[in-house]
Amino acid sequence: MPEYKAPLRDMRFLIDNVFDFHGHYAALGATDASPDMVAAILEEGAKFCENVLAPLNRSGDEEGCHFDNGVVTTPKGFKEAFAQYVEGGWHGVAADPAYGGQGLPQSLGLVLSEMIGSSNTSWGMYPGLTHGAMSAIHAHGTAEQKDTFLTKLTAGEWTGTMCLTEAHCGTDLGLIKTRAVPQADGSYAVTGSKIFISAGEHDMSANIIHLVLAKLPDAPAGTKGISLFIVPKFHADTGERNAVHCGSIEHKMGIKASATCVLNFDGAKGFLIGEPNKGLNCMFTMMNHARLGTGMQGLCNGEASFQGAITYANDRLQMRSLTGAKAPDKAADPIIVHPDVRRMLLTMKAFNEGNRALTYFTAQLLDTAHLSKDAAQRQEAEDLLAFLTPICKAFMTDTGLEVTNHGMQIFGGHGYIREWGMEQLARDARIAPIYEGTNGIQALDLLGRKVLGSQGKLLRGFTKIVHKFCTANAEHPQLKGYVAQLNQLNGEWGELTTKVGMAAMKNPDEVGAAAVDYLMYSGYVVLAYLWLRMAIAALEQPDGDFAKAKLATCEFYFKRLLPRTATHRAAVEAGSECLMSLPAEAFAW
Amino acid sequence: MPEYKAPLRDMRFLIDNVFDFHGHYAALGATDASPDMVAAILEEGAKFCENVLAPLNRSGDEEGCHFDNGVVTTPKGFKEAFAQYVEGGWHGVAADPAYGGQGLPQSLGLVLSEMIGSSNTSWGMYPGLTHGAMSAIHAHGTAEQKDTFLTKLTAGEWTGTMCLTEAHCGTDLGLIKTRAVPQADGSYAVTGSKIFISAGEHDMSANIIHLVLAKLPDAPAGTKGISLFIVPKFHADTGERNAVHCGSIEHKMGIKASATCVLNFDGAKGFLIGEPNKGLNCMFTMMNHARLGTGMQGLCNGEASFQGAITYANDRLQMRSLTGAKAPDKAADPIIVHPDVRRMLLTMKAFNEGNRALTYFTAQLLDTAHLSKDAAQRQEAEDLLAFLTPICKAFMTDTGLEVTNHGMQIFGGHGYIREWGMEQLARDARIAPIYEGTNGIQALDLLGRKVLGSQGKLLRGFTKIVHKFCTANAEHPQLKGYVAQLNQLNGEWGELTTKVGMAAMKNPDEVGAAAVDYLMYSGYVVLAYLWLRMAIAALEQPDGDFAKAKLATCEFYFKRLLPRTATHRAAVEAGSECLMSLPAEAFAW
Repeated sequence: MPEYKAPLRDMRFLIDNVFDFHGHYAALGATDASPDMVAAILEEGAKFCENVLAPLNRSGDEEGCHFDNGVVTTPKGFKEAFAQYVEGGWHGVAADPAYGGQGLPQSLGLVLSEMIGSSNTSWGMYPGLTHGAMSAIHAHGTAEQKDTFLTKLTAGEWTGTMCLTEAHCGTDLGLIKTRAVPQADGSYAVTGSKIFISAGEHDMSANIIHLVLAKLPDAPAGTKGISLFIVPKFHADTGERNAVHCGSIEHKMGIKASATCVLNFDGAKGFLIGEPNKGLNCMFTMMNHARLGTGMQGLCNGEASFQGAITYANDRLQMRSLTGAKAPDKAADPIIVHPDVRRMLLTMKAFNEGNRALTYFTAQLLDTAHLSKDAAQRQEAEDLLAFLTPICKAFMTDTGLEVTNHGMQIFGGHGYIREWGMEQLARDARIAPIYEGTNGIQALDLLGRKVLGSQGKLLRGFTKIVHKFCTANAEHPQLKGYVAQLNQLNGEWGELTTKVGMAAMKNPDEVGAAAVDYLMYSGYVVLAYLWLRMAIAALEQPDGDFAKAKLATCEFYFKRLLPRTATHRAAVEAGSECLMSLPAEAFAW
Repeated sequence: MPEYKAPLRDMRFLIDNVFDFHGHYAALGATDASPDMVAAILEEGAKFCENVLAPLNRSGDEEGCHFDNGVVTTPKGFKEAFAQYVEGGWHGVAADPAYGGQGLPQSLGLVLSEMIGSSNTSWGMYPGLTHGAMSAIHAHGTAEQKDTFLTKLTAGEWTGTMCLTEAHCGTDLGLIKTRAVPQADGSYAVTGSKIFISAGEHDMSANIIHLVLAKLPDAPAGTKGISLFIVPKFHADTGERNAVHCGSIEHKMGIKASATCVLNFDGAKGFLIGEPNKGLNCMFTMMNHARLGTGMQGLCNGEASFQGAITYANDRLQMRSLTGAKAPDKAADPIIVHPDVRRMLLTMKAFNEGNRALTYFTAQLLDTAHLSKDAAQRQEAEDLLAFLTPICKAFMTDTGLEVTNHGMQIFGGHGYIREWGMEQLARDARIAPIYEGTNGIQALDLLGRKVLGSQGKLLRGFTKIVHKFCTANAEHPQLKGYVAQLNQLNGEWGELTTKVGMAAMKNPDEVGAAAVDYLMYSGYVVLAYLWLRMAIAALEQPDGDFAKAKLATCEFYFKRLLPRTATHRAAVEAGSECLMSLPAEAFAW
């Protein structure tokens, strides 16, 4: 199994040199997030993840979760690690101090989440889902609901879930059948069956607080008739067991130590949270955070895979370099001498470091949207977030999957063997393009809802930033060629959007036909912008070797990965007809 | 689990309409391969695969192989299925009649292999490896070795293996440590440890014949000092156990029902096959067949995944078409109405059908190389085979992996759940880009050894065929636009090759830097040629609906997939510097 070491050098580079987290926190009045505090979270968080979580990653995959008559047991060590995590104060890092949290900015919570997800993706699901439930209750709960539930969740005594999917509907939540019937005491009787509920049942906490989408008896049809309910496993007042039970757990390709549950609600007592029939809106308020978190899984698995691959590529001796032996005293050269192995390693490195920059960039926007006292600044951050979130989710998870596959390939046959841990990372990474809205849905959200839905305004909000950056750096001595390349793609992005928009006015299927390739095109341009920001910042800091590595990776990105935009542009321009002309019954013969 | 139905309509189309197998067999004097025989093999082979092998695919993955103190037991039903396969006469279909085979052309054996691999990839490894061992003994064994071993192998009483890899070397076989010491009786005592030996130990046959690469005591260093030995599990004469034992089996990402063994040879009695120190050459004689077979696994897993996905896409109701409800009587439209789902389905279909055409095209070349009485024709076929084989292996397995990932994605969350069988196909497909020479090695073989090593002659052998085809069809009423597109790419292919060749003369690393993207570029152009051949042949046959489907898929291929060549070309042209400049120690910080 690859040993995990938190990439603190790269994290500090982004925090200190690229995005100036300290100035950012100071401007937002987040004074608790002092440089010392940031340093402590990085160092101590790294130790916890490296020493406690990482050693449980392979064993958790091998053992998986156990289901026995409604009781779910997590793999050996998971429960204890969660206790340590709570004890160490990690769980409430970014939570509201009014309910026992430390009140640090969300960006800092995400920095910690990267380390958690990289060391043990499955384990990270339990606190991750709890944070989602906490956000929902914080944003929409009554004062009483917050007192009752949020305090316990923040303390890590209880954990939470999000119950959306049913067997017959995932993407199309308007079809849900779970019903909530009002009771005389103001509560609701919730009845229905939910599937794919992460952390739906387990042994890590004393109670589990389910947030459940259900329909009221008089609800309008479709997504406008969905409400959100709090359904605790044990009643908060009496401690009695509620009528919600785990029917089974799924056997999955990966994240095997994350319990994915069928939950059956049999008239379970629940409490409405937020307004009736506005349940989906409640969900959407935390969507940006959840989707950025899911996108980050691509980075997490990719980083872990890279750490395995770079070690192996330096150790494994196989063949001689074509330009002459590089380790003549050994039986063969380490495989890192071979250009194609380097191509894979650099692809991994360029995506990981680019995706980390994208995460931090977006995380700062989350902070601003939450903490800024300037309404215009908040709105600007919200707009950029709305635009970047589907890109983060889909681009980072698709490229993360690619990265973990390169990691396996570098190991050759050993990459396919479970013991080495490289194939687990590819299996774990495979869920992220699917859940939290498939990447196809993210693409529709980006192109249809965000870009075309705003008449291009949300796109222009970003391309203007890029354009300004390109203008400011047009004469950069080392980078001007790449700046020009970015500037051109940035312009084409707008033209491409206009083309699709015009076509979509005649035929709405043009949006769906273009969406995924449009999103990937967008992702490559966003990363190009961030790679140049990193290269410029690297040149301005004193570590020459580090700067050279950043420059080399930036160059690789522009020469080897960014040209993929040409293919995605061509696919967008190909239009919908070549997708729609074949009758459904003529696909298979 | 997706139900497997052999795609007989498409197979017959290739056999009858595109590649005229009957004329081809007649010209080669392969009179046994009559149209009736071909029809019988298709129909009866389909039944066997659909009814016997396919039902064991999921259970085999769940159960896996068992190892207990040197004894390997295959999953329930595997042994019985092998007995049925042997009894049905399937094992010797393409084997030499002198040793009990049916003597049908190899292309027909491969048609059968596709059905086997699509219904149960793991199971197919056992006869597959045996066929490899049979080819080696047939090509290089003495008359006595053939009598002793080939007859039993052809009968399916015994099975075979290929023992190449050792823990410290896979790609770089020059490093092997297994030793063979001559004995007084003319045999050799073979000592060493081999890993990743598929079908190395199991319960399906009475004896296992290992073909083992080892070094003689006086062998020259490196690959020129490797010899090949026959090492039976049980001695053919006495029936006594030989000193070769299975030390363990690997726990793998996929193909779990295929036993991947560590084999320990402790002075095991072996027999030299072929000349001393020419063991790698013996291996190379069957490389084309083995690599085409491995490439086909991409097609097999891809076809099985497509069959699952198309059924699901027609059944699963989720969201409404953006152009208005298509199934207004249902709760939602089947997801096949959505352009992005169609994009994935058509990508799967275009790769599968294109890869099948590539398989059949190459399989005919195998026939010609083996059976033609005209030396010039044999040489031409050998040259084309040498050129196409690495493309078949790498392009078909990389695109096969992509196809199985689309299949999972179409299923959404259900794609990640084992029970549905879609994720198994992605796991099974993941090995094919790694084994039988990684795809990176295939790419070096194509660009370095085949194309540049022949001064471009092997490339020109193929581009001439394409050029001739384009000239002949330049005015095709429906397809001339695509013909022109192919013709242009075909020309660029030569220019790109010249560019890399010139650069490589100055710096050998240019070959490694360009290889994988060069191979993928080549694969897309080869498939474009085959897609046009299919489209033209489809228009000439009487089934209008079938022809329309072929045309629509061809159009999709040209508009949506072929533009990927632009990205691969740009990567090739980017050269090696951006890969080689970063010092090995500066990759990770």
